[in-house]
Amino acid sequence: MEKENYLKNGERLDDLQLNGLHIIQNPEKFCFGMDAVLLSSFCAKTIRKKDKVLDLGTGTGIIPILLSAKAEPAHISALEIQDESVDMAKRSVNLNGLDEKIDIIHGDIKTASLNFGAAVFDAVTTNPPYMNDNHGIKNPDIPKAIARHEILCNLDDIARESSKLLKTQGRFYMVHRPFRMTEIICTLAKYKLETKRICMVHPFVSKEPNMLLIEAVKNGKPFVKFEPPIIVYETPGKYTEQLLEIYGLQQHTP
Amino acid sequence: MEKENYLKNGERLDDLQLNGLHIIQNPEKFCFGMDAVLLSSFCAKTIRKKDKVLDLGTGTGIIPILLSAKAEPAHISALEIQDESVDMAKRSVNLNGLDEKIDIIHGDIKTASLNFGAAVFDAVTTNPPYMNDNHGIKNPDIPKAIARHEILCNLDDIARESSKLLKTQGRFYMVHRPFRMTEIICTLAKYKLETKRICMVHPFVSKEPNMLLIEAVKNGKPFVKFEPPIIVYETPGKYTEQLLEIYGLQQHTP
Repeated sequence: MEKENYLKNGERLDDLQLNGLHIIQNPEKFCFGMDAVLLSSFCAKTIRKKDKVLDLGTGTGIIPILLSAKAEPAHISALEIQDESVDMAKRSVNLNGLDEKIDIIHGDIKTASLNFGAAVFDAVTTNPPYMNDNHGIKNPDIPKAIARHEILCNLDDIARESSKLLKTQGRFYMVHRPFRMTEIICTLAKYKLETKRICMVHPFVSKEPNMLLIEAVKNGKPFVKFEPPIIVYETPGKYTEQLLEIYGLQQHTP
Repeated sequence: MEKENYLKNGERLDDLQLNGLHIIQNPEKFCFGMDAVLLSSFCAKTIRKKDKVLDLGTGTGIIPILLSAKAEPAHISALEIQDESVDMAKRSVNLNGLDEKIDIIHGDIKTASLNFGAAVFDAVTTNPPYMNDNHGIKNPDIPKAIARHEILCNLDDIARESSKLLKTQGRFYMVHRPFRMTEIICTLAKYKLETKRICMVHPFVSKEPNMLLIEAVKNGKPFVKFEPPIIVYETPGKYTEQLLEIYGLQQHTP
């Protein structure tokens, strides 16, 4: 089937610039951002080929699709609660020929360990909703709000379920916002997920970080390894070499 | 009295390059480092002139002396367990004419709240021992070991006593090592000290941070404000403008 025939109304097909991979997205709903790309590269450093991975709140499946190429784990399960996203993710997996590598599953993060069982995954990845301030959300059921705000699940749900789902010494990977770092670290610790690796992402070298990449280990001992920071822009509009390398791109010189 | 007459055997007098302030140190024992300077500047951003401040483990008194100039709080108490350091710190305070501003007190951090009472300070500052691995320390009573390793007090002691000593909404300031960040944040949280402001210090922009400046608020709500990182060196041996500004220095051009 031609790739374009996979598309439904309002959707578009985006080239991921990686091994010929593509993804179906609907710009009216929610499109993946730099967070998903940086998280998949961050995970790929320590995910191994024999790993069974679970992505919680996969949306259109961007993280499993990128991970399948960047880390080549044995298998990736991906859980998503929104029907339309599940449908798009399944079609994206199929059009990329990844049906045997990636399972897209319709379900709720809050009860994920009942679905999958305890201590079955080597790694859990997640790009969860960042915002815990749900006041003033007029349409709490719209896809963007669900992806961005803790309407259907919160940090505690994610940490609790991830801890149950992971084998001992299993790894938990998350991208989040620095302003929630204390809650993140303490909530993970509450469920025996010990933060072991952190990378801060700064828009410019002179600016505060606006993204946080974190790896925690189930039943790990306290010792955090900070990585060199990721700086996104050298000057406004011009990406750093470091960022382009992560994206596998080269700077366009005018 | 001439400043030099304040010195005992093996000691030297260092010019702090700030308002004519000096400090007595013994290079055989322990000299202050960049951590104390960065911490005092970090504190000075939010310490107010009406504040009553306590410095825990003050050593030779470097933090109260720098703070007296950088933040001008109403009064600073400074606690130190090592006799020799207490003696040096008292002479430094006296030679700087700061006897009315700074009290150097001989005592133990572990029982500090019994000494001073509960909820009496607006701010607590500390540059504590960083290392929790005390194996292989052959002379656990030498001043450098006590300053660097958690021999006489640990993170839990510091957090517990600080929380008792602080008024509600009082501020706790500490410099530490990034590898202990999860323990730091969780231990502070255990004693209701909520981490509110973090600044990471990197030796070079492309390197991982090796120092962590943290401000926590007693009974504060979770929300971390990250500051732009401090980068120490531009190239090996050449400080960044940012660092020189904190030190109040100008780059020497060859």
